[in-house]
Amino acid sequence: MLLPGLLEKLVIKNDTKIVYLILDGVGGLEVEGKGGTELQVAHTPNLDELAKNSICGLLDPIAPGITPGSGPSHFALFGYDPFESNIGRGILEASGIAFPLTPRDVVARINYATIDKEGRVIDRRAGRITTSENNRICAKLRENAKLGNTEVLVEPVKEHRAVLVLRGDGLEGDIEDTDPQKVGLFPLEPKANNPESKATANLASDFLSQAKSILADEKKANMILLRGFAKHRAYPSLEMRFGLKSLAIATYPMYKGIARLLGMTVLPSLEGIEDEFKALKDQYNNYDFFYLHIKHTDSRGEDGDFDAKVKVIEEVDGFLPQITELNPDVLVVTGDHSTPAKWGGHSWHTLPVILNSKFCRVDQVTKFDEISCIQGGLGRQPTVNLMTIILANAGRLAKFGA
Amino acid sequence: MLLPGLLEKLVIKNDTKIVYLILDGVGGLEVEGKGGTELQVAHTPNLDELAKNSICGLLDPIAPGITPGSGPSHFALFGYDPFESNIGRGILEASGIAFPLTPRDVVARINYATIDKEGRVIDRRAGRITTSENNRICAKLRENAKLGNTEVLVEPVKEHRAVLVLRGDGLEGDIEDTDPQKVGLFPLEPKANNPESKATANLASDFLSQAKSILADEKKANMILLRGFAKHRAYPSLEMRFGLKSLAIATYPMYKGIARLLGMTVLPSLEGIEDEFKALKDQYNNYDFFYLHIKHTDSRGEDGDFDAKVKVIEEVDGFLPQITELNPDVLVVTGDHSTPAKWGGHSWHTLPVILNSKFCRVDQVTKFDEISCIQGGLGRQPTVNLMTIILANAGRLAKFGA
Repeated sequence: MLLPGLLEKLVIKNDTKIVYLILDGVGGLEVEGKGGTELQVAHTPNLDELAKNSICGLLDPIAPGITPGSGPSHFALFGYDPFESNIGRGILEASGIAFPLTPRDVVARINYATIDKEGRVIDRRAGRITTSENNRICAKLRENAKLGNTEVLVEPVKEHRAVLVLRGDGLEGDIEDTDPQKVGLFPLEPKANNPESKATANLASDFLSQAKSILADEKKANMILLRGFAKHRAYPSLEMRFGLKSLAIATYPMYKGIARLLGMTVLPSLEGIEDEFKALKDQYNNYDFFYLHIKHTDSRGEDGDFDAKVKVIEEVDGFLPQITELNPDVLVVTGDHSTPAKWGGHSWHTLPVILNSKFCRVDQVTKFDEISCIQGGLGRQPTVNLMTIILANAGRLAKFGA
Repeated sequence: MLLPGLLEKLVIKNDTKIVYLILDGVGGLEVEGKGGTELQVAHTPNLDELAKNSICGLLDPIAPGITPGSGPSHFALFGYDPFESNIGRGILEASGIAFPLTPRDVVARINYATIDKEGRVIDRRAGRITTSENNRICAKLRENAKLGNTEVLVEPVKEHRAVLVLRGDGLEGDIEDTDPQKVGLFPLEPKANNPESKATANLASDFLSQAKSILADEKKANMILLRGFAKHRAYPSLEMRFGLKSLAIATYPMYKGIARLLGMTVLPSLEGIEDEFKALKDQYNNYDFFYLHIKHTDSRGEDGDFDAKVKVIEEVDGFLPQITELNPDVLVVTGDHSTPAKWGGHSWHTLPVILNSKFCRVDQVTKFDEISCIQGGLGRQPTVNLMTIILANAGRLAKFGA
């Protein structure tokens, strides 16, 4: 890692364009009978051609052996230390719905749940109530729950998911989840992990008792479970740190949320890959830095569906010429982490990366996959380094030292 | 990085010989029509033969994506943390002319400049006055500028360049440059970046006003610009840290200066590569560690002259047998940073490295260039690691732990 603050001191502004194509969970594993990993099996003539003319390598999203959530792995992609920037699920959800957070807020994610008469959780998702039910129940909580000087904000997200924001002075968010993770158990108490968070944990506990009464007459959503408590903090934006006017092109709320936390402009209401590539073209003159996020490589990996993930990769490959014909100064293709169909979830495996620029040192790699890229000139390094290398290739970094 | 102080604790003295051949700015980039990078295109049978019998790899001078100045990249080569050892231009200049610095000194580089009647800079190099003019003007400043208890030392370097040393108690050097970087602008004030440097910044400001009066009757050098302020600090020498009696063989003042800062003996007045290799032979019995610096690979890269850089590499290759026939225990060939002709300046790209010793683990690399060395046994690592590996290969490091 560089010394804190050094990179920002070296930043130069210019009019180069950077495109950052992120295939969520793209890294995979060989499955018997398939003849290779998802990337090896996929027919990707455009990605392979790009790899041939670029420098390639392998990335550790966080550190060798560590399986990342989407939060830290994305922070690393944007050049933010994933350890110190590890943010709570609550804040990711709140940012995803563009809820305006303040530095006085402690945030947690709400899951509506069903409890039995004794208070044991019998459905951790309250039968996946509809979003309009969710809206109604959130309003009920918002109107009836009172915590003295602390404001209580309850915002619906989707289905059984919502966000709780406690807003007040001196709140702290190092508090344990109340979700017992299994049905048949009682919800847990919101336990403070340090003395500073004790008062806030008591407020959360008070809120939970009130919620239980307020929701007592609900059939499905008669309780709430809280997860991912955290105090909101403001992050320095990509503009402040790197002088980049940046645009996020993503379809899923969480990725839009992360982009918002980093001060990126976020395009609303895109649907599907075609829409995303079209948006890149339409907006190309208006920004310096384009984060284009493809979700379904990850989703199909999570499903354990090898063939479907291969198809998504091939679909993206088909759209790649729409980027290359814009001729960006720097084009990077990689993922945030691996989601091998064989593993069925996020994993710790490295990710292949392609970095193309006029000043990249082209290596001997001719295929975009996890095995070929071992031979690449970028070697194997942590994802957090990538942003520095991108800025260098864009001519956006001054020399360090005399 | 190792724990501070650990390496020094492991050091063992013996009578092995280490030769460190540094081709400044040797790393390059492919230029269309040339068929490869400068190293790939150069005909280097001796370097390739050495690579074949050695362990090879790629070095990041500072960190991935960071373009280094010569100061930090050389400190890294000698095993000094390039971040904490990043020294000011003023100190590099002063060391280059062998000016005896003390720990009470704050140093800055002087550029003589021409200002118009209103005080705007119209020539940042004072028409590149001659060195003898420079001598005369420095003497004038030295005799007439007074800063109370603080000594003012002004030493000529060459043409329009000189060194200012403020010597006194409690001086600090975190002070901004006064060079406005463009003609048509007024010189800047020497702004302190922290409270401790405020008093020294005031002294510098006072000195600048006096200099303006003292030089008022000069036609060309009627003002000075100050750059690269820093307080001098003593570095532990290569002898103290590693028990190495070391010799620097270099032709350019700055590299001699860095060597002096690290306690190396510096051969005076060498001219050209042939002279340098002859000096190595002549002095071979007198030292343990030989730093042999070749400047022109960098200069031709800075000029953007691909073919000329190839020629310098080929010239050095021709001299290589003069080292190998001495049969040193460890021979390392690398650079301090890349200066690709295509980029026309220092760049962030990695550098190939060859390490030959009786105990190196020979890998499959058979050519000394940026692409071949990706496959080497040293992998990709920061330059600062190299000194430890050299000492190990020289049998100069004890076991760590029981």
